[in-house]
This record gives sequence, C-alpha cells and structure tokens, in this order.
Amino acid sequence: MRIIIEKDYEQMSKTVMHLLLAEMYKDKAVHLAITAGSTPKRLYELLSEEIRNKKAFDNVTYYNFDEIPYAKRGGYGVTIENLKKMYFDPAGISMDQVHVLDENNYKSHDDYLANVGGLDAFFMGIGADGHFCGNLPGTTKFGDRTSSVAIDVYPEMYDIIKGEVGGKDEEVPTFYVTMGPRSVMDVKAPVMFASGKGKAAIIKKAFFEPVSENVPSSIFQLHPNFTLVLDEEAASEIKDLY
Amino acid sequence: MRIIIEKDYEQMSKTVMHLLLAEMYKDKAVHLAITAGSTPKRLYELLSEEIRNKKAFDNVTYYNFDEIPYAKRGGYGVTIENLKKMYFDPAGISMDQVHVLDENNYKSHDDYLANVGGLDAFFMGIGADGHFCGNLPGTTKFGDRTSSVAIDVYPEMYDIIKGEVGGKDEEVPTFYVTMGPRSVMDVKAPVMFASGKGKAAIIKKAFFEPVSENVPSSIFQLHPNFTLVLDEEAASEIKDLY
Amino acid sequence: MRIIIEKDYEQMSKTVMHLLLAEMYKDKAVHLAITAGSTPKRLYELLSEEIRNKKAFDNVTYYNFDEIPYAKRGGYGVTIENLKKMYFDPAGISMDQVHVLDENNYKSHDDYLANVGGLDAFFMGIGADGHFCGNLPGTTKFGDRTSSVAIDVYPEMYDIIKGEVGGKDEEVPTFYVTMGPRSVMDVKAPVMFASGKGKAAIIKKAFFEPVSENVPSSIFQLHPNFTLVLDEEAASEIKDLY
Amino acid sequence: MRIIIEKDYEQMSKTVMHLLLAEMYKDKAVHLAITAGSTPKRLYELLSEEIRNKKAFDNVTYYNFDEIPYAKRGGYGVTIENLKKMYFDPAGISMDQVHVLDENNYKSHDDYLANVGGLDAFFMGIGADGHFCGNLPGTTKFGDRTSSVAIDVYPEMYDIIKGEVGGKDEEVPTFYVTMGPRSVMDVKAPVMFASGKGKAAIIKKAFFEPVSENVPSSIFQLHPNFTLVLDEEAASEIKDLY
Repeated sequence: MRIIIEKDYEQMSKTVMHLLLAEMYKDKAVHLAITAGSTPKRLYELLSEEIRNKKAFDNVTYYNFDEIPYAKRGGYGVTIENLKKMYFDPAGISMDQVHVLDENNYKSHDDYLANVGGLDAFFMGIGADGHFCGNLPGTTKFGDRTSSVAIDVYPEMYDIIKGEVGGKDEEVPTFYVTMGPRSVMDVKAPVMFASGKGKAAIIKKAFFEPVSENVPSSIFQLHPNFTLVLDEEAASEIKDLY
Repeated sequence: MRIIIEKDYEQMSKTVMHLLLAEMYKDKAVHLAITAGSTPKRLYELLSEEIRNKKAFDNVTYYNFDEIPYAKRGGYGVTIENLKKMYFDPAGISMDQVHVLDENNYKSHDDYLANVGGLDAFFMGIGADGHFCGNLPGTTKFGDRTSSVAIDVYPEMYDIIKGEVGGKDEEVPTFYVTMGPRSVMDVKAPVMFASGKGKAAIIKKAFFEPVSENVPSSIFQLHPNFTLVLDEEAASEIKDLY
Repeated sequence: MRIIIEKDYEQMSKTVMHLLLAEMYKDKAVHLAITAGSTPKRLYELLSEEIRNKKAFDNVTYYNFDEIPYAKRGGYGVTIENLKKMYFDPAGISMDQVHVLDENNYKSHDDYLANVGGLDAFFMGIGADGHFCGNLPGTTKFGDRTSSVAIDVYPEMYDIIKGEVGGKDEEVPTFYVTMGPRSVMDVKAPVMFASGKGKAAIIKKAFFEPVSENVPSSIFQLHPNFTLVLDEEAASEIKDLY
Repeated sequence: MRIIIEKDYEQMSKTVMHLLLAEMYKDKAVHLAITAGSTPKRLYELLSEEIRNKKAFDNVTYYNFDEIPYAKRGGYGVTIENLKKMYFDPAGISMDQVHVLDENNYKSHDDYLANVGGLDAFFMGIGADGHFCGNLPGTTKFGDRTSSVAIDVYPEMYDIIKGEVGGKDEEVPTFYVTMGPRSVMDVKAPVMFASGKGKAAIIKKAFFEPVSENVPSSIFQLHPNFTLVLDEEAASEIKDLY
C-alpha cells in the first residue's frame, strides 16, 4: 500500500491525473475503470484540458464499475451519464472507446474483463461509510464478483438510490449493479483518492484498523499494488501512523 | 485465481517444479519464499536433480516464511533445518543464497522484503484447517504482517509445536514467527499446491466458499495473481464448481 | 545478453524446454514463435512427453517465423510441415493453436502480431553463416520487417531451397518468406540455442565481434532481453570472453 | 517504435513530462537517465514547477548518460553542471539522488547499471547529424558499451568540445565519456524527443531509412519499446510515411 499525500484538493487532483496519464501513455491496449461522483470533478477538468490538446489516446478503453439504471426512461444509467458529462464529452472521447457496464451485461462482466487481459487500473473514491463502487457495508461480501444489489437490501437504500436518479420515485430501479470486491482485487493497479475532513475518519478506519467486510475499502490493505492519494485534510487522522 | 489440476502427486510435483523454474530462470535478481513439510518432498527431489546438473542459479535468493525456533539448542529452527535437508543440501545451494527468517529478525522482515523489491513468488502448502505458513485459524488476522504467535494462543498449540521440535518439552519455544496474511498478499505470484484426498474438503472450503479469517487460505481468492496446483484427489470436491 | 552454457546437447535441450515452459505457464494469452530444423529435435521430444501428460496449454498460440512454400503441391510449407511432425502432432497440439505464416499473409504479419500485443518469446537456432530465420547474409537488412526473399537473390540460394523442398526442381518456389531482423527485435524475449563444435566459430563471431549485417545474428547483441543457450562445444571459443 | 506528434514545442514538452512522470510514479526504485541541452529547457521548467509542489520522489535516481570533463578546473563536468542548473536545483532535487557518470567511473558504468537492475527509461535528444548521447557518426560502433571518445577522433571534434566547455582551450579535455549504443539499447524504455524544422531531415533519415552506424539514432528502429516524441515541425518530412 502506497500513500501519497498532497497539500490540497487541487494538488491531489493533479497527482491522480498523472497516475491516470501514466496508464494511458502505455504503448499497448489499456483498460481503465474510472469513477463518477464529486471527488473527481477537478481531475476531469484538468485531464480534459490536457488531452483535448493532444492526439487521441486510441489505445485506451474506459469502463464504469457500477451502474444505477433509470427504471423508466432507459438509456444510459446514472454513472455513465455522469461520466459522459464530466469527462468523455469535454475531453472529446467517443463512446466507442467506452465499455458500458449495465443491467444487461453485468453477469458476464468478469469474463469479459478476463478475456481482454484484465483491467490495468481502477480509479475510485471512498464513501464515508467505507464503500467503494456499489459495495456498501452489508450489500456484498469480500468474495463477491460483479453482481446486482437489490434496492431493498436494507431500508435506507431506497432513499440513497432515489437521490441518485434525480429524486423521482418512478425512476428508482429494483436493483443496481456493481463490480464486487473480488473483481476489483483482480485489477493490476487500484487507485483510491479522497479529499477533505469528511473523509479523515474513514481513511483511518479503512487503512489503519482491521480488515473487515464492515468497512469494504479495508480490503485494499491486502492488494499488492494499491495506491491511496489524499489531500492533507483527508490524511489528518493518519499522520502519525505510517 | 488460476487452478491447475494434474493426474497425481508426481505430475503435480513436476508442474510446481516448472513454475519454480520459471521464476528462477528470470534474468534478474529473484526472491523466492518456499515451503518445508511433506507435500514438497517429491518436488525437491525432482528439482534438486534438475539443477544439480546445471550452472548455479546465482540470481536466486531463497526465503523461509515461518520458523519455529528450538528453545534450547539454538541454531537453525525447524523450517530452515528441514529445507536444508530436503532441498538446499541435495541441490548444492549454499546458505549464502538463503535469507533466514527467524526469531531475531522477524520484526524487520517486511521492511527487508520491501527494500529488495518484494518477493517474486511464494510456494506454499495448505493445512487441513485452511492454514498457510503459520497462519492457523485464530492466530492471525487478515491485516497482520510478519509477526510472532505465542504458543499459548490456544491450548492445542503446545502439542502441535512439540511435535514439530521432535517431541521434546525442553525444545518448545514460547512463540513462533510467521509472515502474516497481509505480507503474503504483497507477493507478486503466490502459488499453493496440495495433494491427496485429505485436502479435498479444505480446498473446496477455502476457494469455493466465503472469504473468512476462519479459513485463512480463503484470502487468496482476493489475490490478482494466485495459482493453485492440485492433483485429482485434492480436486475431487471442486470438479463441478469451476 | 544472457549466456547459459550447459554440459551437452541433452542438458541444453532441457534448459531450453524450461525456458519454453516458463513462457507457456504464464497466466495469460501467450504468443510463441518456434523453430523447426535439427537443433530442437531433442527439445521437442522432451517437451512433447512433458505436456502430453498435462492439461492442454490452451493459452498458447504458436507461430512459425519463416516458410518455404512448395511450388507445386500446395498445402503447408516446409517449416510448418516439419513443426507438425516434430512437435504439434506428438504433443497433441491442435492446428487451431497455430498461426501459420505463409506466402499469402506475410505482408500483414507484423500488423497481425502488433494487434495481439506482440510475440512473448522467440525460440530460434543459428546457422553456421550467422543467419537466423530466413535472414541469411545478403538477403535482408537490419531494418527489414517480415518480407519475401527471391530465390535468385544469389546463385547458391536455389540449391539451398531445393534441398529444403526434398530435392525436386518442380517444388522450388520463386521466393520464401521470413520475419525480418526488425520484426524479431520487437519480440519481448528472443532465445537462441546452439549445439556442437560446428557452431563454435559463429557463436564467437556473432556475439563477441562487431555488430554487422554480414553476420545477421549479431543484431541480438542489441536486444535488451536476449538469451543464448549453448552446450560446451558450441561455447568452446568464447570461454575466456565473458 | 511508437511515434507521438504534438502541435508545438510546448505540447511536446508537456507530453515528455507526462512520460517522465509515468516512470517517476512507479511504486518501486526507479532509475532514469536524462538529457541536458537546449531541447529539454521547457520540459524541465514544467517538471520543476510540477514536482516542487509535491512530496519528493525519493524512489527516483537520476543518471547523466555522457560527460565532458573540464580539463583544468575539475568538479562536475559540462552535462551534470547543466542538469543541475536546469533541473535538479529548480526542482529541489538533492545531488544524493543523482548518480554521476564521469571520467573516473565510466569503465564500470554498465556493470553498475546491471547491478541496480538496469535503467527504467532514458530521455534523450537527437543531433542534426543523427547522434544521441556522445555517439556521433564515426566515434562509436553499434556494439560499443559505455566508453571514452578521444577528442582527436576527427578534426572537427576539438571545436565542438571547446564550444561545450565555454570556449576556453585550457578546459578542453583529451576525451569525453558516453554510454554506447549497446548500453542504451539495454534500457527498458528509451524515449527520444525533437522539436523544430532543423530536426525534420534527420528524423526522416534516422527512422524511415536504413539502419546504419552512419546515423547512430537509426539503431532505435530495432528497440522493442522505443518512443519518439516530435512537434509538427520536426515531423514535417515523415507525415506520409507511417
């Protein structure tokens, strides 16, 4: 486990961009899973500006690692829609370079990845509850591969998902899909990044306390090639621990 | 997780030898942790004969991954003594090529390994209780690095260790040392091998049932580059599962 | 450049087998170019016996690296016919696992290889004139990729090729095809092996004298990951040089 | 051979910076040889600003690949002095992280590099005569390792070197040292970059015409992992060729 601590959100975003570019510049077919959400906002601004000015990275295929389908309207789900708006469109990346994980193909997703030689890298955030991807405490087990999680897995999930689909009850699906802990551990280089005081407690808990399914991200203590990028606020509770 | 199933103990031993030689023939400094015990007996016979006839593999450094010190007589512990007799001596390998983990240096073992760039590969067996190295159920946690385990960790341990040191009470140490689950997960290529019907049940439990600290070897379901080599008997309960 | 010297032809063949198995046992799609001819005879005997007893290596695709087509009868050319007899058939390898380079597809061969991610390894012999594959002195330049060589490139070539196609004038083609020096330098791990006193002089010339297109194999002095396996006779003129 | 073409000097410099950072961010000890001279001026400005704001890259050791000693004053030679001014000082890199190649240690330089596991990457420019490092046409052969070149190798060399040491006759040494073509071909990832119309002709000659010792850089046509980064002007004569 490598830990990189940067001064602030801006510097953390730049460092994650450099780690992403390091993968993208490999002279081979590169398979990258990337996160949606708010943490990577500045990352995608910086990266879009950087690569718009350059020749296309035709060697890169992008993957989402979880998806919440809209129950009614169909089309892209919440994650891909978000990635498209934040990164693919501003960076001028065609959807031909995106492999969309969704409610129709998730059962064969791990086989698909094995066939292309596995994911080279995986860029993700962490939730205040220790979740990564759609692996919230109580939804999946360490040994789970890509699978679906029923919305009624526990009572609070309905409201979480309702928030994601725009607050409309009719768009809440009966399940979402996510790469499981075991699938993510298969990735060659998982990278997690976090910013702000709100993440300080979970960073300590996930990476300096016991490995436990109750804190899903603690599994990365066990990955031989895991990188954690933090700003100083997110790192504020672990300063004396490493 | 890759599973290779061979007809019998002889063929399994040959395949493990080929996997070992694949590491040893790398044109670089190679760091290998290898197991003592009864399962690798034929492996070391085959390998010793093979490499005695060839130029020395000067690029290879060998490591033991656990050790039971003799309480009274001192000198090498149980594991290194066993490896010396089974492999280093018959293969003509000098102890200069062996990095001995013992009761004096285990606290700095993980740092030592990090400094040499990590272990390239790790060849180990599995116990009927699911243990690997000295990680028996109830002794270590998934997040543990190289550490010591007190002989009084639970009542049965005294007799286990007494058996290992030749049945003499005066040679039973107060603790043994072992690389922990987290240390082993850091290895680039862990390889586990098992033979015989006596291992069939634990193979199923460890690799086709949930990941759990109660079955320490189940952790390897989570390693991105793990190989399991079995003979048909050891594989007899998993035939329809993969 | 790594040089491995074994006692005799038998030990050299075993070592090359171990290097081949090291590639074959990689847990990924593996692309291997292998040589026909007399030097690998014992290698293929040993290897066929070894892998017939084991589960198929479904992950391996084999490639020939040069081909002399029969002018009249059609079908497989000299090289593939020879590989089939010496290795694919005795080892039980289906032709579905063989990518045949021939007079019809050689122009797109380099692109094909680039598409599959390149050759992982390349096992070849050396001629007494320093040639490798069909790259004889005076036929190709260092910068050449896979291409054809006209039989009338120089006077002696007709008889060389006539010997290869069974001594029949009507089967002598107007050209043969070969991977060029530049194509072979693209391989991740080229391995050359040689046996016997008849190779001692060219081994010295190719690897301990200047790099020159007059000695095609001297190009491998420049490869970052080249291995040369010799028996003591083939190494008899270089003993004091490295 | 991978060719990356950017719009102008600024974009080329950014891309080379990203390739450098990709090496530096590897989670292991990284060994990098880097070039002095005028082409990397903007690269080092960008990179210095980038890494001054971040935690030190303690894992990186830098190497110069050639050196012109000052005959009289002693101390650092021309290359290291230049690198110190352009990069090490502005980026806050301690000379403890620099392995200095000079007139005293060049004979053991290749052995030194082999011992640390080889150079990970090599960032260099190209001369209008096709030279790289101190390998000018007529000074070294493809098979040469790190060596010295006498100033009287040919008449014009005196003035070239006099220019480098500040125009003072008394500082002209009797020889300079350089990594040779064979040493550089051993590097895992050589990267060459060039900018401006003045380089357009040699780029075509070195990479789209025959491999020849008269054009030293043409050797990189033969490297399995070579990258060439150009701006549009430097690429202006090769647009229809690849």
